[in-house]
Amino acid sequence: MKKYDLLIKNGVVVTTTDMYACDVAVKDGKIAAMELNMDEAEAEKVCDVNGKLVLPGALDVHTHLQMPFGGTVSADSYLSGTRAAACGGVTTIFDYPVQHAGETILGLVNSKKEILEQDACVDYAMHCCITNLNDGEILEEMEQAVAEGITSFKCFLVYKKEGMMVDDATLARLLIRAKELGAMINVHAENPDLIDLNIEKFLKEGKTSAWYHYLSRPEFVEAEADKRAVHWAKHLDAPLYIVHMADKEGLEACIEAKRQGAEVYVETCPQYLEFTCDVYKREDGRNFVCSPPIKGQESQDALWQAIKAGLIDTVATDHCPFQSYEKDWGKDDFTKIPNGCAGVENLYPYMLDAANTGKISFQRVVALCATTPAKIFGCDNKGSLVVGKDADIVIYDKDKDFTITLDSMHSDYDHTIWEGKQLHGYPVQTYLRGQLVYDNGEFVGKPGMGQYIKRSPKK
Amino acid sequence: MKKYDLLIKNGVVVTTTDMYACDVAVKDGKIAAMELNMDEAEAEKVCDVNGKLVLPGALDVHTHLQMPFGGTVSADSYLSGTRAAACGGVTTIFDYPVQHAGETILGLVNSKKEILEQDACVDYAMHCCITNLNDGEILEEMEQAVAEGITSFKCFLVYKKEGMMVDDATLARLLIRAKELGAMINVHAENPDLIDLNIEKFLKEGKTSAWYHYLSRPEFVEAEADKRAVHWAKHLDAPLYIVHMADKEGLEACIEAKRQGAEVYVETCPQYLEFTCDVYKREDGRNFVCSPPIKGQESQDALWQAIKAGLIDTVATDHCPFQSYEKDWGKDDFTKIPNGCAGVENLYPYMLDAANTGKISFQRVVALCATTPAKIFGCDNKGSLVVGKDADIVIYDKDKDFTITLDSMHSDYDHTIWEGKQLHGYPVQTYLRGQLVYDNGEFVGKPGMGQYIKRSPKK
Amino acid sequence: MKKYDLLIKNGVVVTTTDMYACDVAVKDGKIAAMELNMDEAEAEKVCDVNGKLVLPGALDVHTHLQMPFGGTVSADSYLSGTRAAACGGVTTIFDYPVQHAGETILGLVNSKKEILEQDACVDYAMHCCITNLNDGEILEEMEQAVAEGITSFKCFLVYKKEGMMVDDATLARLLIRAKELGAMINVHAENPDLIDLNIEKFLKEGKTSAWYHYLSRPEFVEAEADKRAVHWAKHLDAPLYIVHMADKEGLEACIEAKRQGAEVYVETCPQYLEFTCDVYKREDGRNFVCSPPIKGQESQDALWQAIKAGLIDTVATDHCPFQSYEKDWGKDDFTKIPNGCAGVENLYPYMLDAANTGKISFQRVVALCATTPAKIFGCDNKGSLVVGKDADIVIYDKDKDFTITLDSMHSDYDHTIWEGKQLHGYPVQTYLRGQLVYDNGEFVGKPGMGQYIKRSPKK
Amino acid sequence: MKKYDLLIKNGVVVTTTDMYACDVAVKDGKIAAMELNMDEAEAEKVCDVNGKLVLPGALDVHTHLQMPFGGTVSADSYLSGTRAAACGGVTTIFDYPVQHAGETILGLVNSKKEILEQDACVDYAMHCCITNLNDGEILEEMEQAVAEGITSFKCFLVYKKEGMMVDDATLARLLIRAKELGAMINVHAENPDLIDLNIEKFLKEGKTSAWYHYLSRPEFVEAEADKRAVHWAKHLDAPLYIVHMADKEGLEACIEAKRQGAEVYVETCPQYLEFTCDVYKREDGRNFVCSPPIKGQESQDALWQAIKAGLIDTVATDHCPFQSYEKDWGKDDFTKIPNGCAGVENLYPYMLDAANTGKISFQRVVALCATTPAKIFGCDNKGSLVVGKDADIVIYDKDKDFTITLDSMHSDYDHTIWEGKQLHGYPVQTYLRGQLVYDNGEFVGKPGMGQYIKRSPKK
Repeated sequence: MKKYDLLIKNGVVVTTTDMYACDVAVKDGKIAAMELNMDEAEAEKVCDVNGKLVLPGALDVHTHLQMPFGGTVSADSYLSGTRAAACGGVTTIFDYPVQHAGETILGLVNSKKEILEQDACVDYAMHCCITNLNDGEILEEMEQAVAEGITSFKCFLVYKKEGMMVDDATLARLLIRAKELGAMINVHAENPDLIDLNIEKFLKEGKTSAWYHYLSRPEFVEAEADKRAVHWAKHLDAPLYIVHMADKEGLEACIEAKRQGAEVYVETCPQYLEFTCDVYKREDGRNFVCSPPIKGQESQDALWQAIKAGLIDTVATDHCPFQSYEKDWGKDDFTKIPNGCAGVENLYPYMLDAANTGKISFQRVVALCATTPAKIFGCDNKGSLVVGKDADIVIYDKDKDFTITLDSMHSDYDHTIWEGKQLHGYPVQTYLRGQLVYDNGEFVGKPGMGQYIKRSPKK
Repeated sequence: MKKYDLLIKNGVVVTTTDMYACDVAVKDGKIAAMELNMDEAEAEKVCDVNGKLVLPGALDVHTHLQMPFGGTVSADSYLSGTRAAACGGVTTIFDYPVQHAGETILGLVNSKKEILEQDACVDYAMHCCITNLNDGEILEEMEQAVAEGITSFKCFLVYKKEGMMVDDATLARLLIRAKELGAMINVHAENPDLIDLNIEKFLKEGKTSAWYHYLSRPEFVEAEADKRAVHWAKHLDAPLYIVHMADKEGLEACIEAKRQGAEVYVETCPQYLEFTCDVYKREDGRNFVCSPPIKGQESQDALWQAIKAGLIDTVATDHCPFQSYEKDWGKDDFTKIPNGCAGVENLYPYMLDAANTGKISFQRVVALCATTPAKIFGCDNKGSLVVGKDADIVIYDKDKDFTITLDSMHSDYDHTIWEGKQLHGYPVQTYLRGQLVYDNGEFVGKPGMGQYIKRSPKK
Repeated sequence: MKKYDLLIKNGVVVTTTDMYACDVAVKDGKIAAMELNMDEAEAEKVCDVNGKLVLPGALDVHTHLQMPFGGTVSADSYLSGTRAAACGGVTTIFDYPVQHAGETILGLVNSKKEILEQDACVDYAMHCCITNLNDGEILEEMEQAVAEGITSFKCFLVYKKEGMMVDDATLARLLIRAKELGAMINVHAENPDLIDLNIEKFLKEGKTSAWYHYLSRPEFVEAEADKRAVHWAKHLDAPLYIVHMADKEGLEACIEAKRQGAEVYVETCPQYLEFTCDVYKREDGRNFVCSPPIKGQESQDALWQAIKAGLIDTVATDHCPFQSYEKDWGKDDFTKIPNGCAGVENLYPYMLDAANTGKISFQRVVALCATTPAKIFGCDNKGSLVVGKDADIVIYDKDKDFTITLDSMHSDYDHTIWEGKQLHGYPVQTYLRGQLVYDNGEFVGKPGMGQYIKRSPKK
Repeated sequence: MKKYDLLIKNGVVVTTTDMYACDVAVKDGKIAAMELNMDEAEAEKVCDVNGKLVLPGALDVHTHLQMPFGGTVSADSYLSGTRAAACGGVTTIFDYPVQHAGETILGLVNSKKEILEQDACVDYAMHCCITNLNDGEILEEMEQAVAEGITSFKCFLVYKKEGMMVDDATLARLLIRAKELGAMINVHAENPDLIDLNIEKFLKEGKTSAWYHYLSRPEFVEAEADKRAVHWAKHLDAPLYIVHMADKEGLEACIEAKRQGAEVYVETCPQYLEFTCDVYKREDGRNFVCSPPIKGQESQDALWQAIKAGLIDTVATDHCPFQSYEKDWGKDDFTKIPNGCAGVENLYPYMLDAANTGKISFQRVVALCATTPAKIFGCDNKGSLVVGKDADIVIYDKDKDFTITLDSMHSDYDHTIWEGKQLHGYPVQTYLRGQLVYDNGEFVGKPGMGQYIKRSPKK
C-alpha cells in the first residue's frame, strides 16, 4: 500500500489569506501532506491539476431539501440536492428540518438522518428550526441536541399565520439557552404583521402578480425584524446568525452591532447579489419568488460593499426549488407561489466568478463559502486546506467559461433562475474526503457517501 | 544531503483561522512540507516541540532604530534593535527613515540599507517618511522607489515647528500619487497647532511635568488629524494606513470609513492597550512619553473592542527607546523629553499573552502581528506558515510564565516601561528563514543574517 | 362695563423666544390686549404682578385620572386631579380613557366627558387609548372622533397579558389611518414579551422587591419598542408621538429619525429627569413604581441633553397616583404594585425651577410645557400668550422658595414621590380663561369651570 | 398728539409658533400695543392691511457691501445695498468688514460705521473678520469690541494664499477668547490646500470654465473644514456659527454635534436651496460663482430636510454682487471671476414663497430669517413682534404674484442670478422702527435712517 491515496499535483492552494503553489496529498480521507514537487510514486492515484486552483470544498449552510412547504415538497430530494451540491463544489450541506408543536428535536433530526444516510452524496449537518418550545421541554432537550452535534437552531420571526413564528419571549429564551450551551440561534427576519396586512390589502385590490410579493415584504419589513433580532442578541449578550440578509437597513444595524462588540453574523445569498426586485416584474417573476424577496439596487449595492469590507460573514443559498407547475399555482395569486429558488450548485461558481472577474479576491470567497461557515458552525474538520482536515477539495479552472443552463445542472427541478448566467471560470473536480464525486460535468460519486457532521459547540 | 534542513515535530500550527497539529519541514529557508508524523531521518536537524504552538514570525511594521530625534539618537541601533526583535519572535522589522528637504528617497533608504546589511539580525523592510516634496521631484522618484520595494510612505501631520509636517496639499498629492503606483500612505495623526498652543500655555503657567505632555495632546487633538486623514483618503479614493492609533474618536472615524468602503487600515501599539494616561502622573512618567501619548481608559477600551471585532488591522510597536539620562532632560520641562518607548521584543509576547489568557484568540494575534501586516505591506513571502513562504517560525510555550525585566531583554536601552509585566506563555525559539536566531532566552543568530525585503505594490 | 375684565400689570411675559415687560388685558376669557403701562381704570380687576413672570398656562398632555388600573382606581378623581393641576399652573389636562374590545371611541369618551363637565377645574382634552379595532369599526369611527376633536390615539405596545397591547399590524393600520385623518398615534413603548419573561424568572427566584420592577423592564426593553415604533412611523410616513420616553437608546433612535425627516415627537416626564433607578432600592421604592420605570444615570443625562438641544418636544407627567395602602399590595411582589405616581401639580414648578437655576431657559420651559404640546395636539387657543388666545395665565415668582410636601399639594393621594423637593421659584397665581383658579397656595376655582377642548387635526 | 404714531389694522401676526389676527400699534419706533379692533382715532396714521401677514422685519446676518474683493469692490454700496434690503423686507443687515494685519477691530469697524451713518437705509450690525491676531493684541481688543456691540467675529479657514486664512491655532485661540467674552466665532469653512491643488491642476490642463470653480471646491472640500471647525468648537466647548453651509456631509457633522450638546449654529443661503452645481455648466455660469460654490442635488435635498427638521438655524444671503463686466474677467479663467452673488432683496420673499407654497411653515420662515438670528447674535430689540421691540414690520401679501427681474430690484448691480424666478406672495410694505421705508415696489425711506445696533453678549 502506498503512502498516500491521492496526490493533487501542481495546484495553487487558496486560503483566506494566501494563494500558493503546493501539492496536496490525501490519506484516509484527510489531508495528509502539503509540499512542493511531491513524488508521484508515493500515491495510489495522482491528479495533475496543472496550475488550477485548489480550494476547500464549500459549505452551503442553508438548504431546504425534500422539505414540505407551501402545500408541496421542495423539488430537490436529499439525493438530488446533495448530488447537485457535489457538482457545484459544495461538500457539506446544512439542512433545516422544521420542528412543529409536540415534536422533539432529536426525533425530527434522526428521522431526517435516516434518509440522508442512504441518500446523501456529500456530508451533511443539521440546524433545527424551532417553532414551539413544547412547554419548555425543547429548552431541556437542546442540551442533548448539542451533544449530538446540533449546535444551531433557527427561529422564524415570520410565518405567524402559518404557526411557525416564535414571539420575542421564545426568541429571548432560545438566545439565552443557546448561549449557555455554546450553541447559536439563526433567525429568518421579516415582520409577519406588516406582510399579512399588505397581502390582505393587495388581494382585496386585485393586485396578484409576483411584483406584489415584493411589495408586500419590502425592505423596511425585513429591516424591522433584523433590527429587533440584533437588539435582543446584543443586549442578552448571545450570539446570533441572521440568515439570507437581503436589505440595506437591516444590514447596517448588524454592522453597527458588530462594531459595538456584539457577536452577530450575517449570511446573504447569491440571488440577492445578482438580481434586484425588478425580476418580479418579469413574465416569469414567480420563479424568483423567495422570502425574503430580492430587494432594490441600493440593497444589492450595500451587500456587495459589506462583502468587500469583510462585514458579511457567509454566503449560502437558501436552496429550495419548486417545479414550474408548482410555481404556476401562484399565477393569479402571488400568495400561492411556493417560496424558494435553486442555488446549491451555483453558489461556489457564482462567487468564484466574482473573484475571477476582479470584484473580490479568491481568498474572500474561500472565507465566505468555506472557512468562515465551518468555523462559525463548529465543523472542525471542514473549511480549510490544512493537514489533518477532511480532504474536501475543489479544483477550479479559471479559464473555463461556463453558461448555466438547466441541462448542465444536476438537480431534479425543471427550471432555474440562473438560466443563461455566464461565468468565467468553473469547478472541474470535487473531492469528498479524498474521493472524486464530481468530474468535469459529471457526478461520479454515489448516494450514501455523505456522512453526518457532528458539530462542536462554541468554547 | 538530507531532504530537509530542519524538521519541527509535534507542534500545533496556528493560522488566522485554524490551529492544527502538524510537523513542519524546512529547506533552503522556505517552508518545504507540512505533514503529520514526518520521518526524522529525512532532516538534518530535528526539533521536537512537543505540542507547543508553531507560529509565523511577527512583523513589527513600525520601528525607529538608530534614529536621530529630539537632539539625540534612539537607544537601539539597527543591531541591538533587530537582536531584540529576534528574541521577541519578530522576524521582520520595518524602519522609518525620515527624508528632509533636498534628500531623495533612495539616497536616504540606501544609506540605511548599507548599515542594515551589516547589522540586521532579522529581515527588514523600509517605509520612508516624506517631509518635503523637493518641488515635486519626490513624486517622480516614488515610482522608482516602488520598483525598489519601498511601497509605503509616511506623512507626519504633526511636528510643524520641527519642519516635518506635511500640509493637506502635500498629503493629498501623496495620496493620489501613491494610489497610482500601488503604494500606500501612512500617517502619524496629531494636530500640531493645538499642541503648540497648549505647550506654550502650560510652560507659561509653569506646568512642566510629564502629565502635561498628555494634556497638551489629549484625545481630541489626535482625533482631529485622524478624521482629516481619513476624510481625504475616502474622498480621494486612496488607501491609507494610520499608525499608532490611540484614541477612541479617531478610531471610530476609521471604522465608519471602512464601513463606507474606504481602504483605511488601522495600527495600534501595545502601550495603548496596556496603559492609560495615568502613567504620566507617576514619578517616572517621562519614561512613558511617546507621541501620540497614551490616552484614557475609554480609548483603551475602544481599542480592545475594535481588536475583538476585527476592526483594527495590525499591532506594531513604534519602538523608539531612549536612555534614562536622555529622558531626564525633560525632568523639569516635558517638551525636552525624547519621545518614544521600547517595545519590539514585547509585541508578540504581549499579544500572545492576551490570547493565552482568553482575551482574544491565537488566530487573531497571528492575523494582527503577522499575516495582515505582511499582506497590507506586500511582503509576499512572510506572515503565514504555508509551503513556499519563508520559514520564519516562532515556537511558543503556552505554559511558560515570564516576567519582563530589563535584564531579560536584548536591547541596548537601560530601562523599560514593561518592567515587571507578567506574561503567561512565552516564545522559546525563533527561526529566521529556517535558522535558529533565538533559543530560550538567548540570541543565537548573528548580525548580517537579516535581508532586505523588496515589497510588492498593490495590484 | 369696563373695556377689560382683567388687567395684569407690570409682568414679564415669556414666549418660546422672548421675555419682555408687558401688561396683559383679558376680556371674555381671551387675551385682549398687550401693551405697556395700560390704564388701570379700563379693567374691572387689576392685578399688579410687580415684575413677576407671566407665563402661558401649562398643558399636561398625559394624565390618568379616576382610571381603573391594577385592580383599583387611580387616586385622583377628575375633580381632585384637575384641582391639583390648577394649583400647579396646568390649565389644560389630557386624559387617556382606555377603550376595550367592543367599546366605541365616542361612547367611551362621552362617558368621561359627562363626569368632567361636572368636575373639571381646568380645561380638558382627550386622547383615546385603542386596544381593539372591533373588526375594523374603530378605524371607521376615527373619522367621527377626529370631527369631535379627538385627534390623537394611544397604543400600548406593552400589557400583552392584560389584553391592552396592539400588535404591529394594528399599530400599522392605526398609523396609516391616523395620517389620512390628520390625527396622530401616541405609543407607550415597552416590549411585553421580555418583561413577562423577566417577571416569571424573578418571581420564581423569589426576587420580589421594587428593584425587580426595574430589572424586569430595563433600558433595552423599552428601547426595542421605541425603535420599532419609530421604524414603522418613518417608513409608513405617519406622525408618531412617543409618550414618557425614559431611556437613552430609544431616545437616540427618535432623534435619528427626526434628522431623517420623520415626524416623530418625544415626550418625557419629570420623574425621569429627577430620579434614577436607584430609588427602587429604597425602602419606599414601590412608591416610585411606574411604567416604564425610571432608568439609570446615563439615560437621565441623555434626556437632559436632548432637552437642552431642543430634541425633546414635550414634558408631561403620566400623573397616575395610588394610595399607600394600594402601593403596599406589592410589598412582597412587585407585580402587585399599582403602576403610577403623582405629578400634575409638580410639572410646571419643577421645569421652571430648572430654568430659574440656570439649567435651561424659561423660553424652553414654555415651549416644552405649553406652546409645543398645544401645537402638536391641535389646541389652537392654548399654549401662547398672544392676543385672541385663551387667557390661561400663570404668574411665577422667581424669588419664592418652595418645598414640596404632601400638605402643600391639592390632590387626594396620601404620599408623593416629590416629598421634600426644594424648588427655587414657584407659581403664585393661575388664571383659567381669565378667571383666577389658584392664588398663592389656595385653589380658588370651582369644579365644572373646565371646558372640553375640541382639537384641530393636522393640516 | 395721539397715543400711537401708527396703527396696522386687520393683519395676521406671525411668530415662530403662531399666526393670529391682531392689530399692531407703534409709538416712538417701538411696538406699543397689540390688540384686536383698536380704535383708529388713537393713531396718527392707520394702515389697514386687510388680512395680510404682519411679519417681523428680517435680519440678513450675512452681507458684504461696498467690499474690496477680487481686485474690485462689491457692486452694492452701503446705500444701495441697504436700500435693496428695505425693499426685500430686511430691516437689519450685518456687514463683514475684513481686518488685515496691523489693523485694529474698532479702527476698522468705526471707519465703516462712519459711512453707514450717512448711507444706511436700514439698521446695521457688524461682525468683524479677523485675519491676523497682531501678536495677540486683537485678543485683548476683543473685550472692548464686545463692549461696543461687536459680539461675533468671522474666521476664514480658506483664502490661504490671499493671506486671509487663520490656522487652527488662531482659530482655537479665538474660540476660547470669544467664549470668555460671551462672543461667538463664525467660520467660512473650506479647505484651501485642496482648492489650490485643484486650481493648479485644472489651469494646467486648460480647464478654465466656471464648472471648474465648482470642481475645484467640491462637496468634500467644504465638508473637511466644516468638520474640523465643529470638532474644535465641540471639544473647546465654545459656540460656533458656520456661515453659508452648502454641503451635506458638513451639515451632518453639525447636526451630530448639536445632538451631542455642542453649541453649533448653521446658516445656509437661498442660492444653495434653489440651484445646484449644474448652473456652472451654463453659458452664464460665472454669474453664479460664489464660495463655497453651489453643490449637487443631494446637498440641496439635505439642506431642505434639515430646515424642515429645525436643524438649520438661519438663512442669510452672503450678498456680494459684482457687475457683469467684472464677472467677465473670468470668462477664460474661473479664478478671475469675483466671488459673490446678489441676494439681500430676495431672501425673505424667497423663503416666504417656500412657506406660501406649502414647503415649510410661515412660522419657520420667521424663525430662520428674523427671530433666531436676532437671538443668536444678541439683537435684543429685533426679530419678534412683541411689545417693546423695534417696530420693524413687513406686510406680506400672500396673493401677490411676483417675478424677479433686474428692473424690479433696488440694488446697483446689473444682473441677478434670480432673474425670472417666480414667487407666489410678496412683501408690500416694510417699516423700519415704525417708519415706512418700502411701499409696494418703491423705496420710500432715506439714507441715514438706519442705526447701528449695539449687540449684547451671550449670558
